[in-house]
Amino acid sequence: MTATFRTLDVLLNPRAIAVVGASSNPMKIGGRPIAYMKAQGYAGRIYPVNPRADTVQGLPAYPSIAAIGAPVDLAIVAAAAPAVEGIVREGIAAGIRAFVVFSSGFGEFSEEGAAMQARLRAICDAAGVLLLGPNCLGVINIRNRVIASFTTAMEDHALIEGGFGFVSQSGALGAYWLDMVFQRGIGVSSWIATGNEAGITVSDAIHHLARDPDTRVIGCYIEDIKDGPAFREAALSAIAAGKPVILIKSGRSRIGAAAAASHTGALAGEDERYQALFDQIGIVRVNALSEMVSLARLILMQPPASGPNVGIISVSGGAGVMLADELDEAGFAIPPFDADTRARLNDALPGFVSANNPLDVTGGVAGDSGIFSRVLDALGSAPDHDGFVLFIGLMASISRDLSESLVRAFAGRGKQVVVVWIGAPAAVVRELEAHGLPVYPDIPEAVRAMRLARELGAGRQKAQRLLGTEWAAPLPAAAALETRSEIRAQEVIRAHSSLAFPAQVLVQTPEQAAEALSVLTPPLAVKLQSPDMPHKSEHGGVRLGIADRDTLMRTVREMREIAGTRRLRLDGILLQEMSQVAHELIVGFRRDPLFGPLLLIGRGGVEVELRPDCRMAYLPLTPEAVLSMLRGLATAALFEGYRGGPRGDLPALARSLADLGRAFAADSTIEEIEINPLALTRDGRLVALDALSLHRVAPPASRAEPGGTPGEAPGPEAP
Amino acid sequence: MTATFRTLDVLLNPRAIAVVGASSNPMKIGGRPIAYMKAQGYAGRIYPVNPRADTVQGLPAYPSIAAIGAPVDLAIVAAAAPAVEGIVREGIAAGIRAFVVFSSGFGEFSEEGAAMQARLRAICDAAGVLLLGPNCLGVINIRNRVIASFTTAMEDHALIEGGFGFVSQSGALGAYWLDMVFQRGIGVSSWIATGNEAGITVSDAIHHLARDPDTRVIGCYIEDIKDGPAFREAALSAIAAGKPVILIKSGRSRIGAAAAASHTGALAGEDERYQALFDQIGIVRVNALSEMVSLARLILMQPPASGPNVGIISVSGGAGVMLADELDEAGFAIPPFDADTRARLNDALPGFVSANNPLDVTGGVAGDSGIFSRVLDALGSAPDHDGFVLFIGLMASISRDLSESLVRAFAGRGKQVVVVWIGAPAAVVRELEAHGLPVYPDIPEAVRAMRLARELGAGRQKAQRLLGTEWAAPLPAAAALETRSEIRAQEVIRAHSSLAFPAQVLVQTPEQAAEALSVLTPPLAVKLQSPDMPHKSEHGGVRLGIADRDTLMRTVREMREIAGTRRLRLDGILLQEMSQVAHELIVGFRRDPLFGPLLLIGRGGVEVELRPDCRMAYLPLTPEAVLSMLRGLATAALFEGYRGGPRGDLPALARSLADLGRAFAADSTIEEIEINPLALTRDGRLVALDALSLHRVAPPASRAEPGGTPGEAPGPEAP
Repeated sequence: MTATFRTLDVLLNPRAIAVVGASSNPMKIGGRPIAYMKAQGYAGRIYPVNPRADTVQGLPAYPSIAAIGAPVDLAIVAAAAPAVEGIVREGIAAGIRAFVVFSSGFGEFSEEGAAMQARLRAICDAAGVLLLGPNCLGVINIRNRVIASFTTAMEDHALIEGGFGFVSQSGALGAYWLDMVFQRGIGVSSWIATGNEAGITVSDAIHHLARDPDTRVIGCYIEDIKDGPAFREAALSAIAAGKPVILIKSGRSRIGAAAAASHTGALAGEDERYQALFDQIGIVRVNALSEMVSLARLILMQPPASGPNVGIISVSGGAGVMLADELDEAGFAIPPFDADTRARLNDALPGFVSANNPLDVTGGVAGDSGIFSRVLDALGSAPDHDGFVLFIGLMASISRDLSESLVRAFAGRGKQVVVVWIGAPAAVVRELEAHGLPVYPDIPEAVRAMRLARELGAGRQKAQRLLGTEWAAPLPAAAALETRSEIRAQEVIRAHSSLAFPAQVLVQTPEQAAEALSVLTPPLAVKLQSPDMPHKSEHGGVRLGIADRDTLMRTVREMREIAGTRRLRLDGILLQEMSQVAHELIVGFRRDPLFGPLLLIGRGGVEVELRPDCRMAYLPLTPEAVLSMLRGLATAALFEGYRGGPRGDLPALARSLADLGRAFAADSTIEEIEINPLALTRDGRLVALDALSLHRVAPPASRAEPGGTPGEAPGPEAP
Repeated sequence: MTATFRTLDVLLNPRAIAVVGASSNPMKIGGRPIAYMKAQGYAGRIYPVNPRADTVQGLPAYPSIAAIGAPVDLAIVAAAAPAVEGIVREGIAAGIRAFVVFSSGFGEFSEEGAAMQARLRAICDAAGVLLLGPNCLGVINIRNRVIASFTTAMEDHALIEGGFGFVSQSGALGAYWLDMVFQRGIGVSSWIATGNEAGITVSDAIHHLARDPDTRVIGCYIEDIKDGPAFREAALSAIAAGKPVILIKSGRSRIGAAAAASHTGALAGEDERYQALFDQIGIVRVNALSEMVSLARLILMQPPASGPNVGIISVSGGAGVMLADELDEAGFAIPPFDADTRARLNDALPGFVSANNPLDVTGGVAGDSGIFSRVLDALGSAPDHDGFVLFIGLMASISRDLSESLVRAFAGRGKQVVVVWIGAPAAVVRELEAHGLPVYPDIPEAVRAMRLARELGAGRQKAQRLLGTEWAAPLPAAAALETRSEIRAQEVIRAHSSLAFPAQVLVQTPEQAAEALSVLTPPLAVKLQSPDMPHKSEHGGVRLGIADRDTLMRTVREMREIAGTRRLRLDGILLQEMSQVAHELIVGFRRDPLFGPLLLIGRGGVEVELRPDCRMAYLPLTPEAVLSMLRGLATAALFEGYRGGPRGDLPALARSLADLGRAFAADSTIEEIEINPLALTRDGRLVALDALSLHRVAPPASRAEPGGTPGEAPGPEAP
């Protein structure tokens, strides 16, 4: 744990709240929080501040914060932007420890606004008080009815306490989320909309929810994280502690994204770098609020499935098969029931029904709902199955019987149980969900939620393995970069790994090249080595298949001429024995400005751009982690003896890349290393056939230590 | 048009209906149709037949069909299975022309039931009357209130007339569909559940809906089609006539599917062969009823988008970006507005909003709904954009203003307009949809419907191009098959195409092999040619890279010994010049027992099983169609000069494969031809490096002519 976080307790549990810019109109921004908290029964004191009113919504009003004359923990600020700084100063002077600033017109609007925002941040940091916003929709704690928000989503809903917490960089998305979860009867813990994030960030809020005993599942909407290491640490600790993080990140499409120069760069676009972090630490990403809510309903009601084996019980054969199709595509298995379970089922079923999986209890249930009940009872523990999906359609007239059977058979059984009920009566849905059995209106939504729930389970394991990792820190952008030639890049790689290169000799003259034939076996590759020609094969700097002395000498002469004509700095001419390539990898080490150094491994070769197949993760990485990246490639089998082909030693490669990654992360003078291709030869060797490195010309002005979190101000109440 | 179809007019428009097994209990199978039709106002006469009642549900009852003594078009049969045959005979004698048989206990239940079902079919075919079922949920025509069904889905709904027709092999799925469409306010034309399909098939029903003036969109649920050519023709004619077919086929997963022997076989599994047909003729497949209904709502309300360019107007910046993400992934473009439109928008927008796409009108709309109205008006014709998506969230208090603006700006404008409104008030949804503006509750569902609507548009074009195609017919399974050696398979291929093979000589002796060196340039491939060794490379029957005379002669000697030891019939030893392979294709011609002969083209090589990349279509195919299969491969670029690589002449290859396909389809003695690999060489030639053919030992007993439809009985009322 290296990042520091703001402690949000006083923001979410204030004993008294001042509302500056309080309005008597409950529909106005300065009126809504008061109206909501009065209606919902906030137990603390509310002090409206409004110099032009004696009372506001029935409460005594005060002309200023100073005039309140009683302890206040939190101030809600609903004033014009230029007035905010004065209000916050006044509040700090009066001992207020947290500010929620609704006001817009700051960094999101203009240069002047950004300057005001920076001053506001500095004032709050200096005083050690919390700042949420500005330009934010505020914060809500359902349990104690703190509603420091003007969201219209609080208008029509009875509040439901529960385990779902939400953090959002967008107020609008936050409002839609609130409306959606209350509509679907899901209970909420806390809700935090961070706005311009001058103070409290999404990372602080996740860190808070991770330690909040009321919160069991964390939802999150982000557009752009600025404190990458803190975000990683907050999410990781939440997930490892068993609080899944379900996240939406908008901007995943490449619309408008600039084309990247290097191969690794092209594969590691903006969104891919976020996605790599999510995948690595176990954040589960969804693309819409409805998907988030659909998943949260399942995991709030049901234990995670302990494995992939699902039993299907359906009132329609066709729907049972459709469920099996969808589950199979989502990576589940539909194995037969064990012999004991089959025997019990056969006793319970009418003669014309077989105890298969999917189990079709047939529409006959409509005439004899006892069939359904007997089947569910007979299922018993079904030891080979990790969860069940029940499919029902319509059957309004016997829906109460069916739901009672379901509750009796499954509620609290400890196995995941999901109900798909097309056309279910609303009352039955409420009844089943009150007993912890989630009901979905069609098959795809249910199966998607089940698939994502399994991902959450795998995510928790990932996070637990990563606890305590000393992450390498991101660096400020480099002032200038310099490319090194292949032979120089090889030096970096050789110094820190046991990666293999072709047999080779670096020469300066045709005569030296001729002499090299005594130690190298033709045919040879001849490559011009210059920091000024990184893409040497595109500029005549590479010649392949040179087999005889004369051609070799002539080629070396020509390369020297190219270097002379183009005024290239020349490190020499590299002669390499050629390899019989079976398959190619591409390996890149890069520095992500947000999350730090990373390793990218992908299938290489000519088709890499047509059907990219790559994995990316942040450093440091254990050899085991690198090996699972390698084996996670869709085409991984090609590198381990597929169909009699050559078998590379992937564990040894993984050790080398883990070593090299550790060295790369620690040496902040290296910006990038690319090995492309790293070839598997037909005789089973893994050889770096080309390499390139990018170096910072001078060390960065402010060099961060690994594990540090540059660019993040310490929290006001950090331990 | 070669298939014959049953004409269903009398089934769907009967002037009088007898209900045999009529019940006074409106909840019983024999009572429901009477209750539904009375309640909904069927205008014809209903004659309950029940020997134990004088009246049924207030109608005079008759002891038998014969006793009715008035013309009856349709009989609904709700009697025990053993009684059905007698009832149908009696009905035929009384002049009834269509029977809907609800009764179960036929082919779905037992051997005896199957025999009864076969007799029933024979009786109806002989009499030239229609038979729907048995074991079916019946048929509904909403316009004239014919409800010859006992589905419980008709219990609670007011009927809505409209353009959506449905055909289902599952009664249960049919019932869920009815419930779902009425719930969502979608109007229905006709609904046909085909049950055991002893008479009327899904193909007949689609053919009917294709000609039914009330039907604009056809939904379909199938499990297993038996009359492949008729299904293809019915669907094709519907789609070409502008009636999209949206289809669910269950059983798409490979659970329990047997492993296939050949490569082509492995790539052409059961579901893939259906999917190939759907893709070829423009059927759009969905995986759930909710997806079908979601798509149908859009196309029933909105014109198809004429292109991929979408304009986004959102009240939330975050949601606008999420919409852009989802649309981009679905293949849409989000181009900027043209200069004129931008100018108009800038006039309409507040100063802090830019006329971008996505256009974020901001939450300020909540305070001034006029912004929204002005923006929509300013959008005008936006000539560069083919459709619009509006995103709104909550805003209950101004929802009426917003919906009025939307209706004024967009209703009937002729461009596709879709509304995503999270938390929309139900009344506003109804209002917008009444004006033809579909409202979706979240982004993914809307974008999915838009994507599928574009597929429907492309499907119509496909179907129109295929109108009048004389399809090659499927053949009955072969009694016995025989493999031919590569050299014999080459003869078949050479006879009908100009596909290239390596320079080669077939020899019988080592001495002939030595002589062949005068015409062949080593290194050579040496391949044993025997019909008894189809997989020759796995059994020592292939040696590569033979470069000198002695090795060549020894190799030929060894191959002869292998053939002798294994007692193989020997066609000779094939010597081929070796090619420098850049990339490989696999090409297969096969006979599908359901839909007829097909061509499969895929990326070949070692990774074909790891990441299959193939296309499949039924014969005959034009050279243009084959070329678009080739270019439809994900890795197609590799075969046309990708990144300086070799360029194969794909149009010439397509001509050859189209020719060969035509010959294959016409010659029913050939069961299969596989060319694997068909290599693109480094010097840009496309060469068949290996080939195999399978032949029927004797011609099939009943040989069908191309274009015929074997196994399908002529319809009773075929023209």
